[in-house]
Amino acid sequence: MGIAAASGLLEGLDEIADIGRDPQRGGYSRHLWQPADMQLREWFTARAHAIGLDVETDRNGNLWAWWGSPGPDAVVIGSHLDSVPGGGAFDGPLGVESALAVVRRLKASGFTPHRPVAVISFAEEEGSRFGVACLGSQLMTGAVSPAQVRALRDDDGVSFADAARRVGFDADRIGRDDEALSRIGVFIELHVEQGRGLIELGSPTAIASRILAHGRWTLTFRGQGNHAGATLMSDRDDPMIAAARAVLEVRQAALEMPGSRATVGRLVAVPGGSNVIASSVAMTLDARADSDEQTRALVASIAERVGASEFVENSWSPQVTFDESLARLLTRAIGEVPVLPSGAGHDAGILSAVVPTAMVFVRNPAGISHAPEEHAELDDCLAGVDALESVVRSLVA
Amino acid sequence: MGIAAASGLLEGLDEIADIGRDPQRGGYSRHLWQPADMQLREWFTARAHAIGLDVETDRNGNLWAWWGSPGPDAVVIGSHLDSVPGGGAFDGPLGVESALAVVRRLKASGFTPHRPVAVISFAEEEGSRFGVACLGSQLMTGAVSPAQVRALRDDDGVSFADAARRVGFDADRIGRDDEALSRIGVFIELHVEQGRGLIELGSPTAIASRILAHGRWTLTFRGQGNHAGATLMSDRDDPMIAAARAVLEVRQAALEMPGSRATVGRLVAVPGGSNVIASSVAMTLDARADSDEQTRALVASIAERVGASEFVENSWSPQVTFDESLARLLTRAIGEVPVLPSGAGHDAGILSAVVPTAMVFVRNPAGISHAPEEHAELDDCLAGVDALESVVRSLVA
Repeated sequence: MGIAAASGLLEGLDEIADIGRDPQRGGYSRHLWQPADMQLREWFTARAHAIGLDVETDRNGNLWAWWGSPGPDAVVIGSHLDSVPGGGAFDGPLGVESALAVVRRLKASGFTPHRPVAVISFAEEEGSRFGVACLGSQLMTGAVSPAQVRALRDDDGVSFADAARRVGFDADRIGRDDEALSRIGVFIELHVEQGRGLIELGSPTAIASRILAHGRWTLTFRGQGNHAGATLMSDRDDPMIAAARAVLEVRQAALEMPGSRATVGRLVAVPGGSNVIASSVAMTLDARADSDEQTRALVASIAERVGASEFVENSWSPQVTFDESLARLLTRAIGEVPVLPSGAGHDAGILSAVVPTAMVFVRNPAGISHAPEEHAELDDCLAGVDALESVVRSLVA
Repeated sequence: MGIAAASGLLEGLDEIADIGRDPQRGGYSRHLWQPADMQLREWFTARAHAIGLDVETDRNGNLWAWWGSPGPDAVVIGSHLDSVPGGGAFDGPLGVESALAVVRRLKASGFTPHRPVAVISFAEEEGSRFGVACLGSQLMTGAVSPAQVRALRDDDGVSFADAARRVGFDADRIGRDDEALSRIGVFIELHVEQGRGLIELGSPTAIASRILAHGRWTLTFRGQGNHAGATLMSDRDDPMIAAARAVLEVRQAALEMPGSRATVGRLVAVPGGSNVIASSVAMTLDARADSDEQTRALVASIAERVGASEFVENSWSPQVTFDESLARLLTRAIGEVPVLPSGAGHDAGILSAVVPTAMVFVRNPAGISHAPEEHAELDDCLAGVDALESVVRSLVA
């Protein structure tokens, strides 16, 4: 990587550059409690200890590094260390390493905070192992049922509870954590931008206004499995055809609603033989738009167009509007920077339901994220650290 | 099943009705050297022994049951016992069980053959474990390279050579088997029809004229992986869109060439996350038409329409025309029955390159094959046994 070695500030990104590389997909696959995630937890702990912070893991698997006694009214900064399958180096780790860098710099300057400060790394933000995004923050705020989470299974059929047991984590204690929540005064998440907003605005950083409503669905198309060689074209009921039309309709529906986004990221034919007409095809749908109502309208339009045999909602996240007075405070501390909505979900969106929350974005020079090509320039990352430092200074001075 | 219990003739199909059931896909998944295949081999051996046949496994894993001393100039009848993933009960086993029934009936009638008769069950006809169809017959005739076959890997990464070792089979000896071939005078394969040809003709049985040329290809579409929420529709290079269009173009190309068939049976997006725009999509293409030239033209038309990043040929089987004098002999023995081309590949197609070969089809009442719903009525199956018995009688009398 070498993205940060020159800075003397963000070299933690270099230290973890070889953890969890995915030779098949490229980039990184870092998922909850798998070896890469365990290595990243060790790295976080060691790096926080090196600047004199106390590290603890909460009941939901989130890591906290405390400067001063834990809470109440703490200024909490951070993000997550896990990735999507084949993800980039910045989505998550940039926010964690920047938060550690801010504390290191404030400490080095002899600054004494008048409120506790904590750096947090949330567990399983991407939901890549157990299918539920923002798992650590959703558990902490009580947005998901502990019993349902314990029963979630990964692609190998391993339950959350068993996965926890294998790494010595007590899954019986997961769930809403009022003690942890009571310590948080404000939460601020720095994150690489995941679109092209800051390229067009010509700014290295921005503040988030809100997170688009979004959800995930599974669409299933059923037909008649049959022999690929012996079945005449006219005798077929091939669900792959309906599925292909649906992929194009999903795109068309999103194009017809400005600002909305709809994506089919996976499509699985059953039985999946090369010489077999499929009997059914399942596909994922990810849909997001400018309000809850628009997102619902987008999905309803897709449902009407595609005529799937089944159309199942897997998750639904209403629009999140970040705390306006905290956003004004950020603007005063950082200076005038653009204010952008986020098309991506974040732990900050979950936390905003219970504490004042804000986000700082760092420019993404190609607008690529959730892919190995994800990038941020060092100067922009340093501008992000400067911005976050200014905010923390103004909050704890 | 109970399809054959009443017949006192084909009850072997009932005996194997619980072997290799696939609870996920429905139907059967019976693949080379996996437990279901090993059970089927034991069943074949016991059932052949029960009618006084000697059973041997050849160098390529094909099973032979001999009535009389092995070859030369034997009349060999049979088919295969493996299945596609989630396949039906008849594709393969009907031919094996019918062949055993013919021998049993001839023996019971006190008939003495003047040539050796053998019942054969070919290994891995569907190619479902190692990706190469008609593997046992292709190895025996030298149509595939033993070294390449030994290196083939299944979906779990297990090589053919290792899979052989695990069941005590010596993979060093696979390859063209002139001794086995020298024993075959003629080969006749009875098989359930896999289309609707016999429904329309109103006949329980037919004779095959030829096997359509066919091949398998893999098409890959590349784009730019990205975040499903943060990437505007206008900023996307989503290969799923090109892949979906390709699925529809494949169908359109086949519709425009009467008699041809083209199928996309599997489509895999990488990385395959529900909230990730794919970076690449791979799909299988199975294409067949009325001659080698037409099949090549069909695939060329598809290649031109879809503009894939990669278009790789995995297999190619030229059209096979069955032995005409043997077909005339079958017609004399069975009586006037329809003559049909086969859209499906068979071991008989491979054998026809080296020995006179013929096929008998049994009506499929819904035209469904390679699916759990595959069926044949008992009366039609019995008509198939009658036809095969007549042919064998006329050949060995």
